[in-house]
Amino acid sequence: MPGLNSEGWTCPLPLRDYPRIVLGHGGGGKLTSELIENLFLPAFDNAALTSLGDATVLPNIGGRLAVTTDSYVVRPLFFPGGCIGDLAVHGTVNDLAMAGARPLYLTAAFILEEGLLLSTLGQIVRAMARSAREAGVKIICGDTKVVERGHGDGCFITTTGVGVVPEEIVFGPDQVKEGDLVVVSGTLGNHGVAILSVREGLDFGTTIESDTAPLYSLVVQMLASGASLRMMRDPTRGGLAATLNEIVGRMEFGIEIEESKVPLDSQVQAACELLGLDPFQVANEGKLVAVVAEEKSEELLQFMRQHPLGQKAAVIGRVTREYPGLVVAKTSLGGRRVISMPMGEQLPRIC
Amino acid sequence: MPGLNSEGWTCPLPLRDYPRIVLGHGGGGKLTSELIENLFLPAFDNAALTSLGDATVLPNIGGRLAVTTDSYVVRPLFFPGGCIGDLAVHGTVNDLAMAGARPLYLTAAFILEEGLLLSTLGQIVRAMARSAREAGVKIICGDTKVVERGHGDGCFITTTGVGVVPEEIVFGPDQVKEGDLVVVSGTLGNHGVAILSVREGLDFGTTIESDTAPLYSLVVQMLASGASLRMMRDPTRGGLAATLNEIVGRMEFGIEIEESKVPLDSQVQAACELLGLDPFQVANEGKLVAVVAEEKSEELLQFMRQHPLGQKAAVIGRVTREYPGLVVAKTSLGGRRVISMPMGEQLPRIC
Repeated sequence: MPGLNSEGWTCPLPLRDYPRIVLGHGGGGKLTSELIENLFLPAFDNAALTSLGDATVLPNIGGRLAVTTDSYVVRPLFFPGGCIGDLAVHGTVNDLAMAGARPLYLTAAFILEEGLLLSTLGQIVRAMARSAREAGVKIICGDTKVVERGHGDGCFITTTGVGVVPEEIVFGPDQVKEGDLVVVSGTLGNHGVAILSVREGLDFGTTIESDTAPLYSLVVQMLASGASLRMMRDPTRGGLAATLNEIVGRMEFGIEIEESKVPLDSQVQAACELLGLDPFQVANEGKLVAVVAEEKSEELLQFMRQHPLGQKAAVIGRVTREYPGLVVAKTSLGGRRVISMPMGEQLPRIC
Repeated sequence: MPGLNSEGWTCPLPLRDYPRIVLGHGGGGKLTSELIENLFLPAFDNAALTSLGDATVLPNIGGRLAVTTDSYVVRPLFFPGGCIGDLAVHGTVNDLAMAGARPLYLTAAFILEEGLLLSTLGQIVRAMARSAREAGVKIICGDTKVVERGHGDGCFITTTGVGVVPEEIVFGPDQVKEGDLVVVSGTLGNHGVAILSVREGLDFGTTIESDTAPLYSLVVQMLASGASLRMMRDPTRGGLAATLNEIVGRMEFGIEIEESKVPLDSQVQAACELLGLDPFQVANEGKLVAVVAEEKSEELLQFMRQHPLGQKAAVIGRVTREYPGLVVAKTSLGGRRVISMPMGEQLPRIC
């Protein structure tokens, strides 16, 4: 297969000697074709992509479509547990999964900075291809643009996801009822702390890895439990705090959580204390927050815990009429505090 | 409507005093919400977008889907005849139209550089909204990321388009037959020369404007002519030369064109001569190249010329067995030359 070698993409473009991206790679001519033929096509191999038209034509999906888009600008490009390529797949398929949609297709658009090593791009693309296979999605079309050195930052990726929503699924804030439970699928804050540790060169004794992962198979497992799922969100930028505030912002209820029930890795907790970060505001890339009916919630947790990504699933709170529009935390000392919407993000360029 | 004022978006975000994009606008918290509520929602106003879930759920489209994605990094952001916002809509809906698809939906992902004026972003977003309305598409979901000053270039936009392909349409290089005609919808090179003139501060006496425009209504007109359309492409990056070479690269035939029949504005031609540019390699953003059956081609041209975007439509060449895989031009002197695939793009960051 052109471009693949036993070292793993150290030489994705055999036709040219210069090992870096040049402006011409974004020019739509021979150099662009070389990137496509030698790098993208072998990695993302599928019939739809290979047709190489201006647009990719797909069979009738035959159901409600879910569509979502995200740009990824994470810095650095590689971090413990993943790279921008993994994020660009997981972040987008997870947004589909949170709508209850089965992820089917991704598009991938690259904005590359002149001078980026082709071997680096090769590693990123290989990671995307692997993540896409794991997530069960096909990368069906793409685009490459190149900007001059100093006008970009190595590699930005924008992915758009298309999925299909099964007939019976209706998720949304309008489905939430008083007394519903708030569930998280595992420990929070790992992604943000992993990025920060490598960015700042911090050493916490052990490596804290990003939790980046595709969540749809966990959603399938949750649906199989028979519990009534009202809505789901993945707490990425702004973390749990932003996600819960978004939820209460779109319904007539409030949410009360118990701080002590929120699962945290002890290393992440220690790192957050050291750095003055609020772990509830730190980004996650492989976790979900679900609002579910209390009935059958025990079954739900059992089902979730059987899944590798749900082993530490926990009920952390409840929907209440008491504080409409607010997120309130019961502290370990028995007091209560309002968790407000973060202004920005504690850590820029986390995803 | 929040954010709109009589001056036209000079103050899209009334809630903050600072007139520029800050990192927090990409943080997923309050500042991001302000951008969404005060800028994107009023401009792109539609029910699907307003649901603001992680993904947007759409009704069953009930046909073959066409999907395409492109990043836009044009420099400068504004140029005679348009701006990056227009391009980000037209470029993507045109790729759908070239597959014969009716454009339905767009997603829009912004990568903004810290320090971008909010009023500039407002102008771009307003242009996108206007172009989307004209093109008949809804912008149904989006994303905003912000990178530090010096790590981006003002504003990059990635749009993904979703359309539906009518049952009877089958376009593609495999539909092309020997003797088919090659048609262009109008004069070539206007977009590239417009960008270059403003970038380099050149004055050609009159302003050459970009041809940026949405092509689907012209495609509908062409289909109505009853002619057999085999395939279409829009000659953007790399211009006519790249497009024709892409076409011959995917079929067993060659294409012979007559140079003198390719429509060129005299100003564009003069500018290209002055600057040493090959007008066949200059980008267009509102033109199409179609391969069509000779039968009913006269009717096709009549129908095209009744459309504002097809007034200068012309047959420029023919599909031939004589030069398989090659694009050959008959020059005005009666000789023949091979038009090869450009290596990169004469003008970087043209779209």
